[in-house]
Amino acid sequence: MFGEMLNRVREKNPLVHCITNYVTANDCANLLLACGASPIMADDPQEAEEIASRCDALTLNLGTLQERTVTSMIAAGKTAHALNRPIVLDPVGAGASRFRTESAAAILHEVRPTAIRGNLSELKALILGAGDTRGVDAGAGDQIREDLEETGELVRSLAKKAGCVVAATGAVDLISDGHSLYRVRNGDPMMGRVTGTGCQLSSLTAAFLGASPERPLEAVIAAVCAMGVCGELARQRLSPLEGNLSYRDRIIDAMFLLNEKTLEEKANVQCSE
Amino acid sequence: MFGEMLNRVREKNPLVHCITNYVTANDCANLLLACGASPIMADDPQEAEEIASRCDALTLNLGTLQERTVTSMIAAGKTAHALNRPIVLDPVGAGASRFRTESAAAILHEVRPTAIRGNLSELKALILGAGDTRGVDAGAGDQIREDLEETGELVRSLAKKAGCVVAATGAVDLISDGHSLYRVRNGDPMMGRVTGTGCQLSSLTAAFLGASPERPLEAVIAAVCAMGVCGELARQRLSPLEGNLSYRDRIIDAMFLLNEKTLEEKANVQCSE
Amino acid sequence: MFGEMLNRVREKNPLVHCITNYVTANDCANLLLACGASPIMADDPQEAEEIASRCDALTLNLGTLQERTVTSMIAAGKTAHALNRPIVLDPVGAGASRFRTESAAAILHEVRPTAIRGNLSELKALILGAGDTRGVDAGAGDQIREDLEETGELVRSLAKKAGCVVAATGAVDLISDGHSLYRVRNGDPMMGRVTGTGCQLSSLTAAFLGASPERPLEAVIAAVCAMGVCGELARQRLSPLEGNLSYRDRIIDAMFLLNEKTLEEKANVQCSE
Repeated sequence: MFGEMLNRVREKNPLVHCITNYVTANDCANLLLACGASPIMADDPQEAEEIASRCDALTLNLGTLQERTVTSMIAAGKTAHALNRPIVLDPVGAGASRFRTESAAAILHEVRPTAIRGNLSELKALILGAGDTRGVDAGAGDQIREDLEETGELVRSLAKKAGCVVAATGAVDLISDGHSLYRVRNGDPMMGRVTGTGCQLSSLTAAFLGASPERPLEAVIAAVCAMGVCGELARQRLSPLEGNLSYRDRIIDAMFLLNEKTLEEKANVQCSE
Repeated sequence: MFGEMLNRVREKNPLVHCITNYVTANDCANLLLACGASPIMADDPQEAEEIASRCDALTLNLGTLQERTVTSMIAAGKTAHALNRPIVLDPVGAGASRFRTESAAAILHEVRPTAIRGNLSELKALILGAGDTRGVDAGAGDQIREDLEETGELVRSLAKKAGCVVAATGAVDLISDGHSLYRVRNGDPMMGRVTGTGCQLSSLTAAFLGASPERPLEAVIAAVCAMGVCGELARQRLSPLEGNLSYRDRIIDAMFLLNEKTLEEKANVQCSE
Repeated sequence: MFGEMLNRVREKNPLVHCITNYVTANDCANLLLACGASPIMADDPQEAEEIASRCDALTLNLGTLQERTVTSMIAAGKTAHALNRPIVLDPVGAGASRFRTESAAAILHEVRPTAIRGNLSELKALILGAGDTRGVDAGAGDQIREDLEETGELVRSLAKKAGCVVAATGAVDLISDGHSLYRVRNGDPMMGRVTGTGCQLSSLTAAFLGASPERPLEAVIAAVCAMGVCGELARQRLSPLEGNLSYRDRIIDAMFLLNEKTLEEKANVQCSE
């Protein structure tokens, strides 16, 4: 199923509108091209609706947020929603400042995304209004641990409350639509030493949703697996004198080279219900 | 001739003022450094004129356009024009939104660039006010095909209408000053899987124009060839486990290593008239 | 001592608030992750104080400066100063426009940084109000030459006047707190062919200061050495078909892999007083 979803991205070449931060915009664009989608980065309120209406999916990323782009996000999001196009919200740093938390909440309320991807601190700040965010990383109390049965229930309840698919990423990734709950055990700890792997995953999720809008839960799981598998492949391909920047390059390269068979074989997903 | 023009960039080390998008600004800066030029990225209206007046060339790129930078582009452009410094306009996404199309047209009208580089959709939207832009890529009807004799004539007429050198890049690159028409057959299809190779070429064109302002048509052709040749060399140097991000790195690396002899040997240019 | 300071960055994992330019923000973030720190990029006035108050250090970088971010820099800087958190100012392009020079001076006056890092032209423009800046590079008259005894005295006087540690980087790096003067002879000329190695060093300096706030002079020297040593290691690891972009990657990779022993062995520091 996941391999098929990757193939659909490559066949349909979805155009993904990204309103995102300037730190990782280049990586997000190249990852979208790597997976077979096409990016368009456009964040001005004067064109937000028009660009959104031409695209197959939209991703809203709160990194380096500013007043101007909040306006664009809401305008683009409303347009995409009205046209039934999938929307991914990445609440980067929600909980780290009142501006981020409130803007994220306003976007969630006005836009009604198809999926939200973040770490547990960001998701709690966004959906419950309280979290333990440390900058753009999850706080110590919000690490996702294998043994935390209750974390799964929390993610399920967050998804139910938000009314969309929620992907909480960390050492283990937890994905729920409010009913089912999936655990993905792909990826590599070194991904945390590369800026923007989360942003990249959110863009990738938009691409998968854009190619398979009728199956949002599966599309999100497939994207999370694909990113994690690329993180694993990239780690294997890293030579001893390479560090985190080469690793960044190799993750995107791995996505470029990823095929259906490898994704199917390596995806490590478990349904908890 | 092209090798000589590359050498002049390296001898003169032109300072290139870039008002450009945040997605590919880093790549553009590194490509300018690779070819022997020096970049200065400055997009605020408060310094646009002053920076432009200190530079040897200016490039105006409409990616991630916003109201504030349109003002800067016009101010910098007028200054550069008054001082007789070469200006390159890259109408990224013209035709994809009214904001982009109208801003591009306003800049073209107010600034009077030395050269315009874009895909055929963007050029038609900019100069004729109508095109078939798909995001930041050329629309299906605006692909440049080998057998399209009329495409060459269109580019020639666009250059005549715009009153400057026009470079329409695609599978084949067409360059005209309104009189002569040149076809460049360099490059590699994989360049379309890297974000910003077009932006990079526009920056490179400004560097070549800055080093050889008295021969604008030749400078544009040389830049288009140099970028394409680097795309070819980079492709040859790509190993089987490398994808589009390594390819990006290798293109810029190839520019760093490019010499006169290789450029002369590999440049594939044909004059149609 | 320098090795110990690197270890402290890795142990303490300081959170570094960066208000910086969009050209090199990605590289700065990845370099911070490479050295063991964590970046948070946030430049909006609405969250500048709140983010600064949560972080261990702050870096203010004037590349792609705009009115909005000057406001943020002053707000974040005042907060960090009040909380006794180290602040690094990187006056990119001071002297290249009145806007940059005046904004840099205003930030210096209002914020009172712990350290300033720039080339000699930028430092003179910032602290003396006059310099010979060429874009973002030092002017011809402001190259740091080995034989220039008086350059050392100038840097010492700049530090005394600014009331903080000053690091003037170039072929040789000169560092002073207004009393002692240190010369660092690490690095490689090819670092000048990569955009943002200066910005990266400023971010790194903030990380070292964040981990060792009680010893500002040593922390700055350690950061300057660490960056230079990585530039040397990266140069050795460069293969013949690699150019400036691979070099950029290898510098950050070298920081990821750098250990105490190598830094101690290779640091080339001389105290002039």
